[in-house]
Amino acid sequence: MMPDRINVFAPASVANVGCGYDVLGFALEGLGDFLTIERVGARGLEIVEILGGADIPMDPLKNVSTVAGNALLQALGTYTGGFRFKIRKMVKAGSGLGSSASSSSAGVFGLNELLGKPFNKTQLVQFAGEGERVASGKVHYDNVAASIFGGFTLVRSTDPLDIVELNFPDELHVVIAHPQVEVKTSDAKRMLKDEVSLSNAITQWANLSGLTVGLLKGDFDLIGRSMSDVIAEPARSLLIPFYQEAKAAALNAGALGSNIAGSGPSIFCLCKGEKVAQRVRQAVELVYSESSLDIHFHISKINPRGAEIVKDLK
Amino acid sequence: MMPDRINVFAPASVANVGCGYDVLGFALEGLGDFLTIERVGARGLEIVEILGGADIPMDPLKNVSTVAGNALLQALGTYTGGFRFKIRKMVKAGSGLGSSASSSSAGVFGLNELLGKPFNKTQLVQFAGEGERVASGKVHYDNVAASIFGGFTLVRSTDPLDIVELNFPDELHVVIAHPQVEVKTSDAKRMLKDEVSLSNAITQWANLSGLTVGLLKGDFDLIGRSMSDVIAEPARSLLIPFYQEAKAAALNAGALGSNIAGSGPSIFCLCKGEKVAQRVRQAVELVYSESSLDIHFHISKINPRGAEIVKDLK
Repeated sequence: MMPDRINVFAPASVANVGCGYDVLGFALEGLGDFLTIERVGARGLEIVEILGGADIPMDPLKNVSTVAGNALLQALGTYTGGFRFKIRKMVKAGSGLGSSASSSSAGVFGLNELLGKPFNKTQLVQFAGEGERVASGKVHYDNVAASIFGGFTLVRSTDPLDIVELNFPDELHVVIAHPQVEVKTSDAKRMLKDEVSLSNAITQWANLSGLTVGLLKGDFDLIGRSMSDVIAEPARSLLIPFYQEAKAAALNAGALGSNIAGSGPSIFCLCKGEKVAQRVRQAVELVYSESSLDIHFHISKINPRGAEIVKDLK
Repeated sequence: MMPDRINVFAPASVANVGCGYDVLGFALEGLGDFLTIERVGARGLEIVEILGGADIPMDPLKNVSTVAGNALLQALGTYTGGFRFKIRKMVKAGSGLGSSASSSSAGVFGLNELLGKPFNKTQLVQFAGEGERVASGKVHYDNVAASIFGGFTLVRSTDPLDIVELNFPDELHVVIAHPQVEVKTSDAKRMLKDEVSLSNAITQWANLSGLTVGLLKGDFDLIGRSMSDVIAEPARSLLIPFYQEAKAAALNAGALGSNIAGSGPSIFCLCKGEKVAQRVRQAVELVYSESSLDIHFHISKINPRGAEIVKDLK
């Protein structure tokens, strides 16, 4: 029996991960969007409630979770009923933590469960990408892949869509530092040129291959050495106040590596173990305490499960 | 007791491996250069014999094996004696199979053994790179890293030099097809522009990360899907007669992937198992049999050991 009502959670995520610009991402434990989906008689998708105070559209043609959901229903073709969405939005829009991806992923994951799982995870990523199109004007899969699959994910190809899951060491922790400034994704995109030097490109793919090996082998030192970015970070970090100081403090406190989460302004620091993560948080906090800028933190392990059914909306 | 005389072998190698332009390489089983090194009283390095009919310089300031060897001796600083080299050159220069790298690697590996192993493998790669400088005017480490370490190697960084070894599945076989035409490395280099589009660069690093995962997990299908190259192959394949036909035939016969070995003209095809490799060889042979072009083949597994001591010069 398929249930008529389901609560789902889809995690926030960090895209790019330094050298993996546009293709790599990982999911966060303990931060994400919740969604209750209820089967109803009337055809189509409807949003009945948005909890958490986020200023996001209730119009199902504009909200990313229902846009993504509609892409799924359209691909299914046969379903004539409808669903009612109640959203608890926990991931702040504009944080760089895949806020729209969390909602899109929760929408398609929940619908797929209620419909008896007609689609596999890669197909769900494809549908969730339609939510990203509404959010940013362009389909991109790095955040939704991480949110749906969990763990570290590689978008190896977009056409056909090919998502590769990367093993990673369990001890890995992440510190998210979110300075309370706004960085528009469109501004962040504009910072990048359409052409890059072959020599920088070579540096980038050497590091991404190194990071991939480091993750799969659980070689923390290699993860740290490889987590460099010569393409996006040099330009985009200019949009984030005290970025260099925060990064230096994080590395000095023992972080394996640190870089911009997605298009920012959040900064993420990968660490071996929670103790180091706590030290890194304190070090970064100290940097911003000397400014008037407010900063929020999140510390967790990597979420290995991705989107999932939960008991309550919390 | 350190011996006074040693026979060493350093394998031929395939650089680039499709998407790993300038950073990835692997070593071939059963093909490489042999070297006998003998300790003598007179200071410095001397070449007394070159077997195998190769037209390479006997002048130790021009031969890559002694140039690389001198880089090692210079770094050691303390050694006041000398060594006599006898070379059996088996890897054809200009084949794209790391011919100079085999000789350079054999030189530094052998000297290191005779001197009681003062240097580690990464340091040997650094010295062997000086041989590459003489051969092509530019230091590059992708072939020498594979020849010294064996297996698949990633040159993650050149400064400081950081060589990462990649696990790979034992069943992997390679077919080398060497059409008897000359492709000058300098011509091959000129085919590439100094700038690449960001979008092509992203495609390339997504594939390299995918190939890295495929090798480490032994996922043959992923190895095949990832072994694409949007940077070098489109331009350089124009220098190799019947390249597209040969590649299509190889894939059609079951090769996981096929691309240009180094800067060519050799073509390599990765295959799962020897049976497939034999089929692939036949398919490629058929393509060239319809032309007047002669072609040589080599089929083997990946050499997992790299440079090593052997009994005889063979």
